[in-house]
Amino acid sequence: MDVFEQDCQFMRMAIEEAKKAETIGEVPIGAVIVKDGNVIAKGYNLRETSQNAVTHAELSAIQDACKALGSWRLEETTLYVTLEPCPMCAGAILQSRIPRVVYGARDPKGGCVDSLYRLLNDPRFNHECEVAEGVLSDECGQMLSTFFRNLRLKKKQERQ
Amino acid sequence: MDVFEQDCQFMRMAIEEAKKAETIGEVPIGAVIVKDGNVIAKGYNLRETSQNAVTHAELSAIQDACKALGSWRLEETTLYVTLEPCPMCAGAILQSRIPRVVYGARDPKGGCVDSLYRLLNDPRFNHECEVAEGVLSDECGQMLSTFFRNLRLKKKQERQ
Repeated sequence: MDVFEQDCQFMRMAIEEAKKAETIGEVPIGAVIVKDGNVIAKGYNLRETSQNAVTHAELSAIQDACKALGSWRLEETTLYVTLEPCPMCAGAILQSRIPRVVYGARDPKGGCVDSLYRLLNDPRFNHECEVAEGVLSDECGQMLSTFFRNLRLKKKQERQ
Repeated sequence: MDVFEQDCQFMRMAIEEAKKAETIGEVPIGAVIVKDGNVIAKGYNLRETSQNAVTHAELSAIQDACKALGSWRLEETTLYVTLEPCPMCAGAILQSRIPRVVYGARDPKGGCVDSLYRLLNDPRFNHECEVAEGVLSDECGQMLSTFFRNLRLKKKQERQ
């Protein structure tokens, strides 16, 4: 299996996480962290359910991975996430020294890996990441646009 | 009591948090979150003790404040922190919609409020913050430089 096929395989697992979020009415974003070909941590967006501002998919997965490895340094890992990370999650990726990040859809409004900033590739920080984008991006993006379209429809119906 | 005096009073409490970190060998950084003149959450850096990359002072305080208010929106709060926030913590401040941030010392190597980026004042994000810097900055900065000086001395002695 080549790198792209492997990336697609793990992105599918991140999409499965995103779907868990969708099932409970959360914005569908999911993440998994992989080391030596094994998933060591998963996470999905839980902001509304938890009423905790930091419970993004990536942050939950990063904390689980630290627990799994018993270390704040997530060396030799890859993080897969369905949406381009926000500043908080990009910062958490730097803090945990994750060497490789693969994301699905771009977030033109808040993404801090390519869209608004390139926080994972700034030599002034004490860590830089290899980044691959666009893995299953249509599927990842579609999931979000469908979610928001349904939300708008629901709100419209409630107003009528 | 004017705003500056009040800011100094709460920054002293953030310094007390930082000292708790120092006591257990952690880099001394502390934070408190205030609403209506009352401290609703506190936090200090626990990265080595917890072996969790995201346990910065601000992130712990933000999570505690969400719990205290039962909401991910920390409206009408002020966050006091002894050191200029990193990208992760600046991002968490945006995510939790904290309207005002007061910090002590600048972090020229990693600060994302004034030094390397101005993440809290970017109109492209869905939130912006009022920022006050330099409150008790000498004391906040001194605490850090003393900590790192002692750490270098200790390492030097261990090598001899």
